[in-house]
Amino acid sequence: MARPAAAIGARPVVGLDLGGTKIAAALVAPDGTVRARYSCPTPATEGADAVLDALAHAAAAVQGGAQAQAIGVAAAGVVDPAAGVVRAATSTIADWSGVRLAPLLAARTGCRVACDNDVRAAAAAEYAALQAPGASLLHLSVGTGVGGAVVADGRMLRGYAGVAGHLGHLPSPEAAGLPCSCGALGHLEAVAAGPGIAALYNRLAGGEPAPLEEVARRAAAGDPHAAGAIATGATAAGRALGGLTNALGPGHVVVGGGVTGIGDPYWAPLRAAFAAELIEPLRSAPDALVPRPPLAGPDAPVLGAAALTATAPLHAPDTGETR
Amino acid sequence: MARPAAAIGARPVVGLDLGGTKIAAALVAPDGTVRARYSCPTPATEGADAVLDALAHAAAAVQGGAQAQAIGVAAAGVVDPAAGVVRAATSTIADWSGVRLAPLLAARTGCRVACDNDVRAAAAAEYAALQAPGASLLHLSVGTGVGGAVVADGRMLRGYAGVAGHLGHLPSPEAAGLPCSCGALGHLEAVAAGPGIAALYNRLAGGEPAPLEEVARRAAAGDPHAAGAIATGATAAGRALGGLTNALGPGHVVVGGGVTGIGDPYWAPLRAAFAAELIEPLRSAPDALVPRPPLAGPDAPVLGAAALTATAPLHAPDTGETR
Repeated sequence: MARPAAAIGARPVVGLDLGGTKIAAALVAPDGTVRARYSCPTPATEGADAVLDALAHAAAAVQGGAQAQAIGVAAAGVVDPAAGVVRAATSTIADWSGVRLAPLLAARTGCRVACDNDVRAAAAAEYAALQAPGASLLHLSVGTGVGGAVVADGRMLRGYAGVAGHLGHLPSPEAAGLPCSCGALGHLEAVAAGPGIAALYNRLAGGEPAPLEEVARRAAAGDPHAAGAIATGATAAGRALGGLTNALGPGHVVVGGGVTGIGDPYWAPLRAAFAAELIEPLRSAPDALVPRPPLAGPDAPVLGAAALTATAPLHAPDTGETR
Repeated sequence: MARPAAAIGARPVVGLDLGGTKIAAALVAPDGTVRARYSCPTPATEGADAVLDALAHAAAAVQGGAQAQAIGVAAAGVVDPAAGVVRAATSTIADWSGVRLAPLLAARTGCRVACDNDVRAAAAAEYAALQAPGASLLHLSVGTGVGGAVVADGRMLRGYAGVAGHLGHLPSPEAAGLPCSCGALGHLEAVAAGPGIAALYNRLAGGEPAPLEEVARRAAAGDPHAAGAIATGATAAGRALGGLTNALGPGHVVVGGGVTGIGDPYWAPLRAAFAAELIEPLRSAPDALVPRPPLAGPDAPVLGAAALTATAPLHAPDTGETR
């Protein structure tokens, strides 16, 4: 890969991906290669200070003795890159809404910090990888929550207060009556996110609650309730993406996030449900759209976070109040 | 209203709005005032030639003896303004998909003709009326079908093959199991369009089937099945709009189309369902979004159609094949 002239001689940057379940960190060289990786569980129940401490620890772990030029942090929720603040977050991470993420992490690390919504960061990296100026991209991320990003005619949509891309909060027939993390009923996230799939399995199968990893193992071993719960979550995601494709007409539909790691038992029902939603002329287009994983593979989130150091405002250290 | 300099001395234009139930026509002066109106039922079951003849008759009716400078026709379905062709249409109008709308209507009228999707035309007129450069607008139209348009950061989305704005083909919990005009199951249009509301009433009430106008009269007279069917269609529309608002973050949400003429028994459940879907920070925003009718009022569709003569390619008469 060509090294951009502007980056020659620059020091590496840190990319941090903050999810509801885990924090992933990478030290990214100026040529875009990943030099070190680190991951740890998100202390999601322990409050904002514990999460900020864990982010700072992850940044230190990948830097080793070196000093990174800057840190980019991609976080779930409604994130305001200009103010460096998490404007709103669901209950997935305790006490997280309103946190002054960038200046407080800068104070803990001694590094300048840029931040944005996690899926927007990943989608920006995906859009760059497409090398198709003016393309439209629908990007869904399915993990502890369901997030997304929309690139329309080459422009990343931000929307009112940065809310654009929250694709997990569309009404979903498969989620009828289920409480969503946002407080509403029946949203896609309630049935399609990892915890939603696990909860559905536990309702179907009874007995001891099993986490998503165990549900995936049981599905692979032939448990019909496990396969059914995964297929329902995948179908809900595929239907929502199909409906959004009718509404927006994107040229690319990408699905990332940890839940997609289940593999074919997840992708097959998602793709079938997507195709069944499409109207003409999408349905019979010769180059029919098929949802696919990100081009950047599993490093997409941390690469997208690292890229924020070049595309989003950098915030200086500030040790003021948490909010 | 100021008369744009470019229009001084220009002749009036015709705006034609082709819906599944009716054709509306207006003769629009260069200063934007409507000089004559005409409407007639759409011969939707009689095929493409009958619909083209009816459009030509409507254009002649509003011109009287005068000769319009051009005709703009706004039609439901996936319309390609550059080719002047209806690329895809649902079964609402028989034998309509693939019709060479603009050149064939030009041949019947002796006038040059521009065309586009009907809701995109109305939304462009609404966006212009907002006088807010760079605004984002979600525009739903609820009539014989459910259509829409999306303006993102001041740009009208067209999407792959012009499909963008088809908001009636999102999965809707209220439409579970109902066949949609596009061939899929469970889409918003199946429960929220006028015929969907009437069909739901007829299932609830039994007896002789009643059209939407009669359902609205019975709701006003206290028939609980009629009020319930209207509320269900309005709720489905409000939920879909709320979910799309979470996904896109528009600053304006507009609902037009004949079904909204039912009035408060329609608007109240639509607005309540919309508000219940919103995530933070939309939910508690001080300037909270409320879906509203188009600023241009009932003339919006024909004014949007007339405006196409200045914004979309004009097609010369051509008497070739229908497709």
